Amino acid sequence: MEKLVEMGILFDFYGKLLSEKQYRVIDLYYINNFSLAEIGEEINISRQGVYDILKRAENRLVQYEDKLGLVKKFKDTNEKVKIILNLTNDIMMLMEKKKLSEINSKLQYIQKISQEIIEEG
Amino acid sequence: MEKLVEMGILFDFYGKLLSEKQYRVIDLYYINNFSLAEIGEEINISRQGVYDILKRAENRLVQYEDKLGLVKKFKDTNEKVKIILNLTNDIMMLMEKKKLSEINSKLQYIQKISQEIIEEG
Repeated sequence: MEKLVEMGILFDFYGKLLSEKQYRVIDLYYINNFSLAEIGEEINISRQGVYDILKRAENRLVQYEDKLGLVKKFKDTNEKVKIILNLTNDIMMLMEKKKLSEINSKLQYIQKISQEIIEEG
Repeated sequence: MEKLVEMGILFDFYGKLLSEKQYRVIDLYYINNFSLAEIGEEINISRQGVYDILKRAENRLVQYEDKLGLVKKFKDTNEKVKIILNLTNDIMMLMEKKKLSEINSKLQYIQKISQEIIEEG
């Protein structure tokens, strides 16, 4: 995945475990798209200092995910819900076309996926 | 919620952020149902020492959830998936009874809930 998006998600999940300074740097860089130089001016440290904080903060976020895997857990659930949504759209189309015989297996599949999510959660 | 269940869930989510000793005590107490005295024998510290570790570990788990709220996030999603499952069961019953006119609104509701989950995730 694109690093910008990935860091945004990790920050969304684990950001509150960072130090105040790390949180601020990640927020300015990844959410508000400041440059390293701009962040340096904002919080009164050198560009290199900002870079070091940023790298340490990024590493911490990646380590939290390596340990806990909660972003992955969420993404897995989300993929399953996307399948449910697609199946539901299919069923609506089949209803319109009066192809009722094909609907039941799709409903059973939604049941199965829903139960999987509920049991894992 | 029952404390035993709640701690089990918090431990499942955030346990890997505890120290090795805290992890072991919580695991023995909440997952393997050891008494404080039994844990004390197992890891060679006093019953009171075990109690102190347990309380500190419990507090840490609760604090992680206060900060990150990821258990709540999961539970919210799970509640929504339960609604989807119930709606799917309803639709299957309506199909059997040939009450087709009532199906579409339930399908639309599944669509709506699925989209909500996907957008939040």
